[in-house]
Amino acid sequence: MNLNQITSPTLLLDKTKCQNNIRLMANKAKKHGLVFRPHFKTHQSRIIGSWFKQAGINKITVSSLKMAEYFANDDWKDITVAFPANIREIELLNSLAEEIQLNLTIENVESVIFLNNELKFQVGFYIKIDTGYRRTGVSFDIFLTIDKILKAAESSDKLLFKGFLSHAGNTYHAKGPQEVLEIHKDAMHKLSLLKKHYFNKYPDLLMSIGDTPSNSIAEDFLDINEIRPGNFVFYDLMQLGIGSCNPEEIAVIMVCPVVAKHPDRKEIIIHGGAIHFSKESFCIDDKILYGKLVQLNENGWNTNINNSFLTKLSQEHGTLQVTDEVMKNIYIGDLVGIIPVHSCLTANLMKEYLTTDDELIDHL
Amino acid sequence: MNLNQITSPTLLLDKTKCQNNIRLMANKAKKHGLVFRPHFKTHQSRIIGSWFKQAGINKITVSSLKMAEYFANDDWKDITVAFPANIREIELLNSLAEEIQLNLTIENVESVIFLNNELKFQVGFYIKIDTGYRRTGVSFDIFLTIDKILKAAESSDKLLFKGFLSHAGNTYHAKGPQEVLEIHKDAMHKLSLLKKHYFNKYPDLLMSIGDTPSNSIAEDFLDINEIRPGNFVFYDLMQLGIGSCNPEEIAVIMVCPVVAKHPDRKEIIIHGGAIHFSKESFCIDDKILYGKLVQLNENGWNTNINNSFLTKLSQEHGTLQVTDEVMKNIYIGDLVGIIPVHSCLTANLMKEYLTTDDELIDHL
Repeated sequence: MNLNQITSPTLLLDKTKCQNNIRLMANKAKKHGLVFRPHFKTHQSRIIGSWFKQAGINKITVSSLKMAEYFANDDWKDITVAFPANIREIELLNSLAEEIQLNLTIENVESVIFLNNELKFQVGFYIKIDTGYRRTGVSFDIFLTIDKILKAAESSDKLLFKGFLSHAGNTYHAKGPQEVLEIHKDAMHKLSLLKKHYFNKYPDLLMSIGDTPSNSIAEDFLDINEIRPGNFVFYDLMQLGIGSCNPEEIAVIMVCPVVAKHPDRKEIIIHGGAIHFSKESFCIDDKILYGKLVQLNENGWNTNINNSFLTKLSQEHGTLQVTDEVMKNIYIGDLVGIIPVHSCLTANLMKEYLTTDDELIDHL
Repeated sequence: MNLNQITSPTLLLDKTKCQNNIRLMANKAKKHGLVFRPHFKTHQSRIIGSWFKQAGINKITVSSLKMAEYFANDDWKDITVAFPANIREIELLNSLAEEIQLNLTIENVESVIFLNNELKFQVGFYIKIDTGYRRTGVSFDIFLTIDKILKAAESSDKLLFKGFLSHAGNTYHAKGPQEVLEIHKDAMHKLSLLKKHYFNKYPDLLMSIGDTPSNSIAEDFLDINEIRPGNFVFYDLMQLGIGSCNPEEIAVIMVCPVVAKHPDRKEIIIHGGAIHFSKESFCIDDKILYGKLVQLNENGWNTNINNSFLTKLSQEHGTLQVTDEVMKNIYIGDLVGIIPVHSCLTANLMKEYLTTDDELIDHL
């Protein structure tokens, strides 16, 4: 590829790695008889979406109606919004529900009542279940609340109950694959109890889960029907730390110009700050990190550099803490490559991708 | 104002507060005989820029060439890029230098040599001085490096030495106004020594500083000629914590829809996450915060709510930890107002402003 074209912070995408990640996850879903409904909030790209289409995918997940609209306008016809229904957006909800199979996520009776009155077209809905992450959802064992939601929706010809949806986001805090599997196993067990309880009355109910760590690592999906991972399409430093991927599977890096060197404190200053990487950080050995240095080459990058990290970020500045060896070989005006901590947030800031084949790719 | 028009996360701007902030800082600069060269990286808006024009400002600061271009195309003719010169952008540098009075920031001889060879039009340059922040710049007392830079630039008809530029960003970590003033006093003292050393040879040299905490709090500017604060235009929770402003001076809040309530753990879930607020956090009493709840009203907001904070953020979700009183009075589908931790990063993500007069305002 032509690195010389890069003059300012750029998000570089290795298409081959990305397509491999898609193929591997699609194969895994197939092997376990699972519907693969990838979460598009990570890439937010129609072109990357088309790579999923080529892999046979026709159902997707998004995290906002804005994102649903972006992909509905690109001919995606079956979209789940894995975010508690925002009833203030009823107008957009109705216009999407008229065009596509729209599935909502619900966790309170108030939303059911509102939607029941205001929806003009039928939508599917999942009840959001909390298996331990404690962000959103009804706890898996509070049947009373679930029953209330189901009862409120029963009389409605606009709200069609599809099943239960969960996100074990607590795997993002796991210290390694073993802990991910423990959280996953616990979530599977809880969701199975739930399925058993409601299966007689709703024999078609679907169980949907979707966090990249357990979807990447686990090989046992018990009563689950559908997976919705998102981050796996790129992976990143956080997923590498958790053990969801190996370094060669990470499909995006930031490429940034070197603007200053401070050998006395082993620091290199780059153009590349919080408005490029995001301030998402990852803690290794009590050190707060925002990225990890890689070695750029004519085909993209390799991950052979050790002990050199992005350790500070301001709005436009990034500070790399590097080894003496790295310091010696980097000059003012050079480019450096850096694995971001959280690729979803970095992509969301960068708003476009340059591929290692020199193509520009869209982002919402 | 019409809050009902808001259906998704929105950055709300109180124009009166913002214009007051501009007027106060312009008056302060005038009173102290300082050139006021506001940093536009906070608002990145041509319309807000026009409010500075109305206050008599015609020199500005930016943090990237992209931003310089945005404002040069809006007829700003004197722009300082307060970021170490990125020599890879030489093409854009030359095209801007042809059109406007462009001032660069330099801290190494390599950049001087490159620019000397490649610039086609004259630019001004400041040598970046480090007074203790330890991010970029030559330490105030390393005359050897400063002399090398000056010597390398001396023969050039493209690089015109303007003076020394410093950013005491360490005030952002101050625990209160007293510590801000101590850091400021120390920086003033160091910059005075520098000025004394170079004044004979460069009698026209300018001394430029620019951090919002000391520019807001200090009343003594010693040998300084120019101030470049940025954040003061909006202020935010971090500046409130440092003591740079009072709550009524904060000119922006996020307005977000409520999508879920969890009274058992005193949490309210909003649509409003890391892609809206940024993951910049602020620590009060060992608690990590991402924002503070305010009370919305027909004129904008007031800051009468205590002990209710934004405590967690994922990509699109925000978690508010609230009092029982607040919990009782907020319903699914309501809007809540939240002071962001770092208004520069929030504005950069939101990409537009809605004013309390129902106007939409641009952001780069």
